[in-house]
Amino acid sequence: MLHFECDYVMGAHPKILAKFTETNMEAYPGYGNDPYTASAKEKVKNACGNPDAEVHLLTGGTQTNKIVIDSMLRSYEGVIAATTGHVSLHEAGAIEASGHKVLQIQGKDGKLCAEDVEKYIENFYADPSHEHMVFPGMVYISHPTEYGTLYTKAELKALSEVCKKFDIPLFMDGARLGYGLMSKNTDVTLADINELCDVFYFGGTKVGALCGEAVVFTHKNTPKHFFTFIKQNGALLAKGRLLGVQFDTLFTDGLYFEISKNAIEMAEKLKKIFTEKGYELFINSPTNQQFIILNNAKMAELQEKVVFEFWERLDEDRAVVRFCTSWATTEKDLEELSKII
Amino acid sequence: MLHFECDYVMGAHPKILAKFTETNMEAYPGYGNDPYTASAKEKVKNACGNPDAEVHLLTGGTQTNKIVIDSMLRSYEGVIAATTGHVSLHEAGAIEASGHKVLQIQGKDGKLCAEDVEKYIENFYADPSHEHMVFPGMVYISHPTEYGTLYTKAELKALSEVCKKFDIPLFMDGARLGYGLMSKNTDVTLADINELCDVFYFGGTKVGALCGEAVVFTHKNTPKHFFTFIKQNGALLAKGRLLGVQFDTLFTDGLYFEISKNAIEMAEKLKKIFTEKGYELFINSPTNQQFIILNNAKMAELQEKVVFEFWERLDEDRAVVRFCTSWATTEKDLEELSKII
Amino acid sequence: MLHFECDYVMGAHPKILAKFTETNMEAYPGYGNDPYTASAKEKVKNACGNPDAEVHLLTGGTQTNKIVIDSMLRSYEGVIAATTGHVSLHEAGAIEASGHKVLQIQGKDGKLCAEDVEKYIENFYADPSHEHMVFPGMVYISHPTEYGTLYTKAELKALSEVCKKFDIPLFMDGARLGYGLMSKNTDVTLADINELCDVFYFGGTKVGALCGEAVVFTHKNTPKHFFTFIKQNGALLAKGRLLGVQFDTLFTDGLYFEISKNAIEMAEKLKKIFTEKGYELFINSPTNQQFIILNNAKMAELQEKVVFEFWERLDEDRAVVRFCTSWATTEKDLEELSKII
Amino acid sequence: MLHFECDYVMGAHPKILAKFTETNMEAYPGYGNDPYTASAKEKVKNACGNPDAEVHLLTGGTQTNKIVIDSMLRSYEGVIAATTGHVSLHEAGAIEASGHKVLQIQGKDGKLCAEDVEKYIENFYADPSHEHMVFPGMVYISHPTEYGTLYTKAELKALSEVCKKFDIPLFMDGARLGYGLMSKNTDVTLADINELCDVFYFGGTKVGALCGEAVVFTHKNTPKHFFTFIKQNGALLAKGRLLGVQFDTLFTDGLYFEISKNAIEMAEKLKKIFTEKGYELFINSPTNQQFIILNNAKMAELQEKVVFEFWERLDEDRAVVRFCTSWATTEKDLEELSKII
Repeated sequence: MLHFECDYVMGAHPKILAKFTETNMEAYPGYGNDPYTASAKEKVKNACGNPDAEVHLLTGGTQTNKIVIDSMLRSYEGVIAATTGHVSLHEAGAIEASGHKVLQIQGKDGKLCAEDVEKYIENFYADPSHEHMVFPGMVYISHPTEYGTLYTKAELKALSEVCKKFDIPLFMDGARLGYGLMSKNTDVTLADINELCDVFYFGGTKVGALCGEAVVFTHKNTPKHFFTFIKQNGALLAKGRLLGVQFDTLFTDGLYFEISKNAIEMAEKLKKIFTEKGYELFINSPTNQQFIILNNAKMAELQEKVVFEFWERLDEDRAVVRFCTSWATTEKDLEELSKII
Repeated sequence: MLHFECDYVMGAHPKILAKFTETNMEAYPGYGNDPYTASAKEKVKNACGNPDAEVHLLTGGTQTNKIVIDSMLRSYEGVIAATTGHVSLHEAGAIEASGHKVLQIQGKDGKLCAEDVEKYIENFYADPSHEHMVFPGMVYISHPTEYGTLYTKAELKALSEVCKKFDIPLFMDGARLGYGLMSKNTDVTLADINELCDVFYFGGTKVGALCGEAVVFTHKNTPKHFFTFIKQNGALLAKGRLLGVQFDTLFTDGLYFEISKNAIEMAEKLKKIFTEKGYELFINSPTNQQFIILNNAKMAELQEKVVFEFWERLDEDRAVVRFCTSWATTEKDLEELSKII
Repeated sequence: MLHFECDYVMGAHPKILAKFTETNMEAYPGYGNDPYTASAKEKVKNACGNPDAEVHLLTGGTQTNKIVIDSMLRSYEGVIAATTGHVSLHEAGAIEASGHKVLQIQGKDGKLCAEDVEKYIENFYADPSHEHMVFPGMVYISHPTEYGTLYTKAELKALSEVCKKFDIPLFMDGARLGYGLMSKNTDVTLADINELCDVFYFGGTKVGALCGEAVVFTHKNTPKHFFTFIKQNGALLAKGRLLGVQFDTLFTDGLYFEISKNAIEMAEKLKKIFTEKGYELFINSPTNQQFIILNNAKMAELQEKVVFEFWERLDEDRAVVRFCTSWATTEKDLEELSKII
Repeated sequence: MLHFECDYVMGAHPKILAKFTETNMEAYPGYGNDPYTASAKEKVKNACGNPDAEVHLLTGGTQTNKIVIDSMLRSYEGVIAATTGHVSLHEAGAIEASGHKVLQIQGKDGKLCAEDVEKYIENFYADPSHEHMVFPGMVYISHPTEYGTLYTKAELKALSEVCKKFDIPLFMDGARLGYGLMSKNTDVTLADINELCDVFYFGGTKVGALCGEAVVFTHKNTPKHFFTFIKQNGALLAKGRLLGVQFDTLFTDGLYFEISKNAIEMAEKLKKIFTEKGYELFINSPTNQQFIILNNAKMAELQEKVVFEFWERLDEDRAVVRFCTSWATTEKDLEELSKII
């Protein structure tokens, strides 16, 4: 059976496991005070090329979104997100459970448009009864989005300008950030993200780690007592080394970027394989998630040999399905896929 | 440097790392739907000898306490706990952050007394204004406690009876449960816990895992949509195998109990070393946490060669310090300690 | 200056003030244990003609919505509401502050369509990842809606059937219920509401009281310890007589319905005055809120002599404005309005 | 039957009802934008003699405590209060429901001691694991306390200094503030309170109003968007005049202080009546709540002719009971009481 259903189907990059084994019997203080966590933070900061970056390690995406958003908002504020955003739909109400409304705006291909955000906030302040409403206190975007798409540098800049205009932070969910940075069709660099976002994260869970997200506050703007926020949310690991070792490994010698690049190359080949055989793409995604249109018969046929994800029904006869590559996808996987389809 | 400061100072039991390596390139569904999670749950259930047990894997103690308590209480209910309980003091207000008051009762050596709990609840219902107050909705105990002490079977039974009388669940925080079960001075068996508690957990983080706690609802009483509670709290791991593999390993061939036993044997020796040299114990703990009284000079002297934890000041000249053994403590460690003190 | 801007512009119906004065020096127990609260509850229940009705008095609409919704939902559940619903837009995130997502569905003229709700819930359960999402746990409607419109009996029945199908409660926000019941264009009776809704309320604030809403759980389904929910939300009045006296008066000799009828009659006349003079209605509302289209010049002109509410801009030249009648509107007010427009 | 059970047993001071009647048919904007609310705020500010005072009107005590505390704390902070404090015991967990722990300190006669608070906070910061704990973010006191006692100016100053030292606000619950200010045994003036507290309130509910508390932020320190906090908590009245008219009346010509003075004079006489007849006081309260020790037989005998509140059992034979005077207590009430006891 071939596996293309998601990018968290395998364990961790072997170098991570090797490092766990190598450091296992070293005795270290808990709660992130170990040297690997310190080293990981330093390496992430260096990768950002941003001396004002402050790095924190958390366990998963929903957890990270919840803690970052709650720690940066006041009770009367909500977070603007695309209707298709992960925080809008697929986090079981985690943001609302911390008391904040997700202010949903219709996006396009998973992306928020700066103009729409600006108009939303302008309308809010123009409304004479806006003090009876939830204040827009932050903008949340995912990059890559849930549809594998990427913001252009111009789009990101425009969003950042709207945020600055209204003095609210721009937060980038980078659960798949590696795949975004290594895309062949992006003009957004890590330096841009450090400049344009107030906070973002490098997803580890979907890019070669067993778990973990590295949050970066870009201008010494970590909320006060962020550590206690983490603890209060049940997100503090006693063995902080679990995250420290993983990010230390991923950010040594550019491993994070190298394995992201592999996923991109495999995705491009996968896309080529499908299109050359006449399959239609639903979205021309520049990252590791590829959305293919299949008719029902073909879908049933393929499901016997490949695992992929049903995304949504297009019409009675056709569905959109998702194929993901990852750090672990090999040329051999694609050769086999090519034979099957 | 010798390390006795806590039981989470090392990595994981080597068999866990080996299993990670062995299974790393197997492709599995996420969110706990992998075969190792299924197998781990089955093995934990078998260890309990309780066909009605329902097992769930979570990442850490505070997270587990928060989710279990919130999922079992209604908004108007709080949780009774000892003033020294972990939920009362050291979870940064995690329980209150989910809306519930911790109803603190003075304990003794970390333990709640059934009579005190009964009197508290009786007084509550006798108070004509009790509907203006927080309803006692659950009793939380830790076993071993934060002071390394253990409930006797009679004490546990008495607490269970009070809970049954008022129809509220009894919840046992078992962050160090292995060390409690393998203590030489306990009459409480795992069967007793399954019979007397409504929910409890096997701590992994402090008993040989990198992270993880295995929650057991003892009579098919998992709260409805517990999975969604987990997700909403940001506690769901995409790679559920991280927990599955660990607990599967720990509960294969009794490893969890075997390594707990090692910690107990080492703790007994440690205690003997100290007492034979004339040191005074603060509490005669039957588990892996030992509380020693040191004068200031001796404390300063020891700190140069051993890491241990300052617990509290006894008087101007003396302090209580904590020495922990664990699954990883060796005879050699104790020999060196013996030379030093 | 004429006042048509809202239905809470005056004080209370004079009979309420008279009753306050008459009963002022009677000594009564607090927290709703006074005889007027008891009598008010009984009279509301009798008005409903529903022996299973349970009545509770609260202070305001947002407070009532928040407490009713939170007391009936579990943490993993949200409430379905129209995008234009009061809970969606104008309660400053009160529902989210209690941890629940408002699951917004596009309505029409302020109303939710049963088919849309059904499709939403069916899609939810059909989604393989729905356990990662917020469960639809209740349907919230307002009647009259924020646009003055009313559900037909058939529409209400259809919504009720969808709710029953999925075993979730139907909650009717009746902040202006009197005006809905006394509309000349409705086939929905109070008996229907008692039969089809699980909980609803008679708004007092907008129908002649200084404050107050009378919540009715229609089939002995008051959530357990609802009193403590009220207290915990800071909504319990020490002098419960403030609400008791008001609702006792409003529900004596049908005063609530009589004054609602006045508002309807005045609204119908107001609508006639406008349409006869060639003004265009934005919505043909059957209740006490009337939405008129004005061009900019006319709007500016009228604002000098009448207070009304700007609702929304229709295009560059025209706006929608709202005129409200109430229990206090007189024929004389309308005569003057007629001269002005 | 004579009534001394509490100070909210009657309706409102007759001048308030007269003012309601007088202003009833005046048309005013909602949500506190009416002229009576504006005038009330100005008069309260003038009574404080504090040009930096900012005044807000809320409905009840628990509501006020909840909103003030939540609006001034961050998620990681709790509020220090006496174990007997209203927020600790009798608000059904309202503070915890907004996510904050009440950090309970043993008081004396209902009062917090500055030294104890200082030691508590010092110990907190000295604890190496304090970042795993709830930060003390505010000190809450009641004045008069739940036992009718009062802080001296020196005690209040000492508490204020501790708060300033740690840069946290001092919040005074003044549900019965009038009775405290008019006590014959107090050296605390309103000017002192304005100087030493960061926020406090004048209770209306227990001092002659039907409902209402006037919150004063003493140095232009109203939390940002406090209005929206109020709305989000379901505490905003559409007819703000309900509070505006009441406080406008109470703060016209010193009515609030005059009627408080009456309660004090009646309380002193009541105390004299009891002590002269040989009854023992439980606490020698300087305010309107008097705590008398009664034996069981006497208690049963009195209960047939007077309503008072059972406070707590002293021993098998004796109980503490509470007698309250208020703005409405008359000489005639006391004469009758004197005959009865």
